Amino acid sequence: MSKYDVIVLGSGPGGYVTAIRASQLGLKTAVVEKESLGGVCLNWGCIPTKALLKSAQVFEYLKHAEDYGLKVENADKDFAAVVKRSRGVADGMSKGVQFLMKKNKIDVIEGYGKIKPGKKVDVDGKEYSADHIIIATGARSRELPSLPQDGKTVIGYREAMTLPEQPKKMIVVGSGAIGVEFASFYNSMGTEVTIVEYMPTVVPVEDEDVSKQFERSMKKAGIKVMTNSSVEKVEKTDSGVKATVKTKKGEETLEADIVLSAVGIKTNIENIGLEDVGIVVDRDKIIVNDWYQTNMPGYYAIGDVTKGPALAHVASAEGITCVEKIAGMHVEAIDYSNIPGCTYATPEIASVGMTEKQAKEAGYELKVGKFPFSASGKASASGAKDGFVKVIFDAKYGEWLGCHMIGAGVTDMIAEAVLGRKLETTGHEVLKTIHPHPTMSEAVMEAVADAYDEVIHL
Amino acid sequence: MSKYDVIVLGSGPGGYVTAIRASQLGLKTAVVEKESLGGVCLNWGCIPTKALLKSAQVFEYLKHAEDYGLKVENADKDFAAVVKRSRGVADGMSKGVQFLMKKNKIDVIEGYGKIKPGKKVDVDGKEYSADHIIIATGARSRELPSLPQDGKTVIGYREAMTLPEQPKKMIVVGSGAIGVEFASFYNSMGTEVTIVEYMPTVVPVEDEDVSKQFERSMKKAGIKVMTNSSVEKVEKTDSGVKATVKTKKGEETLEADIVLSAVGIKTNIENIGLEDVGIVVDRDKIIVNDWYQTNMPGYYAIGDVTKGPALAHVASAEGITCVEKIAGMHVEAIDYSNIPGCTYATPEIASVGMTEKQAKEAGYELKVGKFPFSASGKASASGAKDGFVKVIFDAKYGEWLGCHMIGAGVTDMIAEAVLGRKLETTGHEVLKTIHPHPTMSEAVMEAVADAYDEVIHL
Repeated sequence: MSKYDVIVLGSGPGGYVTAIRASQLGLKTAVVEKESLGGVCLNWGCIPTKALLKSAQVFEYLKHAEDYGLKVENADKDFAAVVKRSRGVADGMSKGVQFLMKKNKIDVIEGYGKIKPGKKVDVDGKEYSADHIIIATGARSRELPSLPQDGKTVIGYREAMTLPEQPKKMIVVGSGAIGVEFASFYNSMGTEVTIVEYMPTVVPVEDEDVSKQFERSMKKAGIKVMTNSSVEKVEKTDSGVKATVKTKKGEETLEADIVLSAVGIKTNIENIGLEDVGIVVDRDKIIVNDWYQTNMPGYYAIGDVTKGPALAHVASAEGITCVEKIAGMHVEAIDYSNIPGCTYATPEIASVGMTEKQAKEAGYELKVGKFPFSASGKASASGAKDGFVKVIFDAKYGEWLGCHMIGAGVTDMIAEAVLGRKLETTGHEVLKTIHPHPTMSEAVMEAVADAYDEVIHL
Repeated sequence: MSKYDVIVLGSGPGGYVTAIRASQLGLKTAVVEKESLGGVCLNWGCIPTKALLKSAQVFEYLKHAEDYGLKVENADKDFAAVVKRSRGVADGMSKGVQFLMKKNKIDVIEGYGKIKPGKKVDVDGKEYSADHIIIATGARSRELPSLPQDGKTVIGYREAMTLPEQPKKMIVVGSGAIGVEFASFYNSMGTEVTIVEYMPTVVPVEDEDVSKQFERSMKKAGIKVMTNSSVEKVEKTDSGVKATVKTKKGEETLEADIVLSAVGIKTNIENIGLEDVGIVVDRDKIIVNDWYQTNMPGYYAIGDVTKGPALAHVASAEGITCVEKIAGMHVEAIDYSNIPGCTYATPEIASVGMTEKQAKEAGYELKVGKFPFSASGKASASGAKDGFVKVIFDAKYGEWLGCHMIGAGVTDMIAEAVLGRKLETTGHEVLKTIHPHPTMSEAVMEAVADAYDEVIHL
């Protein structure tokens, strides 16, 4: 029986990053993976969707080439080639993780891992033991009882990434990041897309102003948006599906080739031995402390299976924190109030901290500033005037409570706000940080200036 | 005679921003402009060039559509339309400044302004007076004796932006930001471009690693690069020009339609009354203190005419500092060691702080980290794997001495480093700031991790 310092169950962005950091810290490490290295994120999530969305972005440029003084004829997509490119990118990244495992001398154990008492892991009948076992088995697409997925006409994100044929009409149920990214992609490709969202606004976790702007942009792009609505029933027809949608105004029937269910995720905690070991779970999340220890010594859990936001970068950070603590380092607990979230639709959304509503509800007096990209020189030059940066400060002590961005490239701009908040910056310091001209990032400085009535370009 | 609190000479990004801030602070303000509101930056610099470069970027997508699974036929540029778009963007921004002047109740005095003793300004014979006169007259393209500009075959940036016809062959003299941006643009459009640079590396103010990578990218894109070379002589021929270039290996003759001289700038300090008033100048820069006061009370100077870096964002910041001080606010002096610089060629370059060489020469022991975009998932998905982020820390106290980026979209990413440096962050804090996945901005975190031997994805 092979003995390790650390065995990680699952090789997603939680698992493989944890394994690398563990190995860096001198721990003998193995990672168990039943499918492809990199998990959902690399193979069926973050990465391949970004590849699809890049093709969509370029296709938009092709369609609007004239706006830039350019000429094209017969601009078209080759749907199969777009999907193939995305798979190629995912495969490349997965091979990259393979390389990293080897380089860091991490054993990759292929198969289905189950934890057992006595700090053991069973992988398809073979037993391994470790001083520290870290569960990082992630999550999968959640199924609604009213919307069972058959993988053909009612699908999850996984099938949506590799459809053999482009649907003519698609219903996307749920307007979180996954839903709207696919809506945006398929709409760009020429599919007629309807988004059905149960909540009153799309991208409902975002600041209300962002949601409103996003809905406007979606509609402008030709996507039909139904909020306050839910899919009650889906029937198969000869040509696809017929969905009964309950709206505030009554029932409506939509026809489509395919329904994409994007109503959240379900953790992979079944059949991995939690009960055998006696690990305590709350609903579908494994309970852990600040160092990702479960109730059973030597067993840890990180990533989507725990209660933090189910995001790749959170899983990675949790894994690093977990093994640094195991290795005896002085570690700070993760500040869950400072986790950025990104949506890569057109326009992009990026945010960190509280929304205006949350901040008000928390009792703060606010200084709120907003700078629209329509007033930005760089945005004008780029033909990307949609969107804005919104900042929220506590009026009393100047704490940067939240930052919300929507527009081209904002997913690469939010890091400034995250770092600023971590370093407990004040608005004044952001304002006096010279932002290069002309950039989209000036909008951060201007939004802060707006909060303090010093905005220049409005 | 109209009397103001503040008169600003010049309405570039120094002048008009200064005027707005002055007006916000309750000062009765006028701005004098001989040409178009917004100055060189808006009309002949930052903004229209970014519009041209956006067209070039989109044209590159058109040419490489197949890489993204897309199809086009007969992709072509309409050079006149590309230029027209750029002019339209510039005009729009200039109108925007007009609107801002009106909104902020700033008088715009059209004409050629000259300062006079007794805190007066003469504009084409009409006199105005103010308690505070701020000189923000900016700069123009510098002419080398060996390379006199005739505006037809030997041109400056201004003509390069509005050529009536696209040159077939172009020689760009100087590989600073202006030179390489035009080289990049014209190369994309299909012009055969040669860059001649006197220094041993292109973009010679950048970190050596950036210069090397940039040269590789330029060459890969089909641009001919001649470093350690200088144009000795340019003769007109029937079809264009013949340039004699001195290289390390001897003389070489290049033929082209047009030579673009981009060898720096010359301040506009002639014939604006400096001598009459007795304002002291050092070479071609007006001498000012931390609050932009000249030697003559009541006379100030900001922007390109003073000794800081000749950048739009510096001019704006100087102007704001200048009038805030005038208004009696508590003001901090600008930290000139924390000014970002951006170049918007393909790939983009963005940097702040010391280069590795400068940091070594300053006697620091260094921790240097570098993360290539080839190892970034987002970069792979975007088809933008060229480039890297490089960070330089002081090994002893952990100060972030410099950050150097080259790659797609980095001009919008440098703000994080500028803010982090302003807030005196340590590498560890950047490392523990959760960057969203998948973004290009993760490369900052990873580069810092590399500096401290904790990099995950290398």
